Amino acid sequence: MPGRSDIQTFELRTATREEMIDITPQVRSAVKRSGVSDGICCLYCPHTTAGVTIQENSDPDVKADMVAHLNRVVPKNAPFRHDEGNSDAHIKSSIIGATATLIVEDGKPLLGTWQAVFFCEFDGPRERSVRIKVVPG
Amino acid sequence: MPGRSDIQTFELRTATREEMIDITPQVRSAVKRSGVSDGICCLYCPHTTAGVTIQENSDPDVKADMVAHLNRVVPKNAPFRHDEGNSDAHIKSSIIGATATLIVEDGKPLLGTWQAVFFCEFDGPRERSVRIKVVPG
Amino acid sequence: MPGRSDIQTFELRTATREEMIDITPQVRSAVKRSGVSDGICCLYCPHTTAGVTIQENSDPDVKADMVAHLNRVVPKNAPFRHDEGNSDAHIKSSIIGATATLIVEDGKPLLGTWQAVFFCEFDGPRERSVRIKVVPG
Repeated sequence: MPGRSDIQTFELRTATREEMIDITPQVRSAVKRSGVSDGICCLYCPHTTAGVTIQENSDPDVKADMVAHLNRVVPKNAPFRHDEGNSDAHIKSSIIGATATLIVEDGKPLLGTWQAVFFCEFDGPRERSVRIKVVPG
Repeated sequence: MPGRSDIQTFELRTATREEMIDITPQVRSAVKRSGVSDGICCLYCPHTTAGVTIQENSDPDVKADMVAHLNRVVPKNAPFRHDEGNSDAHIKSSIIGATATLIVEDGKPLLGTWQAVFFCEFDGPRERSVRIKVVPG
Repeated sequence: MPGRSDIQTFELRTATREEMIDITPQVRSAVKRSGVSDGICCLYCPHTTAGVTIQENSDPDVKADMVAHLNRVVPKNAPFRHDEGNSDAHIKSSIIGATATLIVEDGKPLLGTWQAVFFCEFDGPRERSVRIKVVPG
């Protein structure tokens, strides 16, 4: 078990170009393993074509709607200069954000009734990772 | 007065489907009540169709423009699958974000001259809450 | 050298209306000067027409594509009411966000291989500042 100030990392494999993956179980485990009862939890996505967000995971249509609508707002084939063909993914990453900070209570991340933590892939499939730091306070 | 690591909660009632409500007074009070002089303040929106942001509250037209333009970018009647009719609100929530972290100095949240903290309602009117955790450091 | 809980500030001068400026060197220096070896680093933009984000700085076309596409999504001449002509900048600021939290490891901000920290100007050219607070934990 790591000390409470250790940075934790977990890996995930995305399956398609764009998708939202519920990583709440991994976040809960990391917070528990940190040994921190009360504080905050910093989630960090070390990739420039992905992000993290907090959203509903009751109806999977919410995820599908979000992925589809982000594609309407930032289409892959907009007139971009970057020649890797993934400028849309970079832009979506900055819109959604690479970081999120959760409150930790009684050794658990505080989430609303309908909330889950999602890893947002915008240029998969790829091997990805998420870093987590829990700070007591 | 709670100890400095207590989580604080305040409730608010939104009045329309989409609006931005200045919650700076509540945030200032929570930071003061925390007893923390220097550190950071984690604001957390436990809802999936709302968010928190930092914006200008000098000219109310800024809020109106933001709400109206988000509706142009994410229209309520886009071709969504989620059958509750509020996919737009979920998407706006993830674009604006459910968390924000402020710096705390001398027992007060550090805000720029024109900045205020806003609760962003995207699927009201509803009873809502905001959670606040202040971490010394 | 400031104590580890001091707030640090650095100034920058933007050159055009919209641009992304790599501020990673300033962030690295601030984290080092804080004297904090392990913890988190809260970046704060005290302006309502600018923001901070984490993105790629390998190919400058990524920045150019992001600035150009944000202008397509939030055009300066959309039908806004705010009479200063910069409602687009306020909206982009809230979409990108005024805060970002990084993990600090061995006295350095933890960044992915391709990641850099950017100040995003949406209503320049102006004199701007960024506030940084490093919290040990």
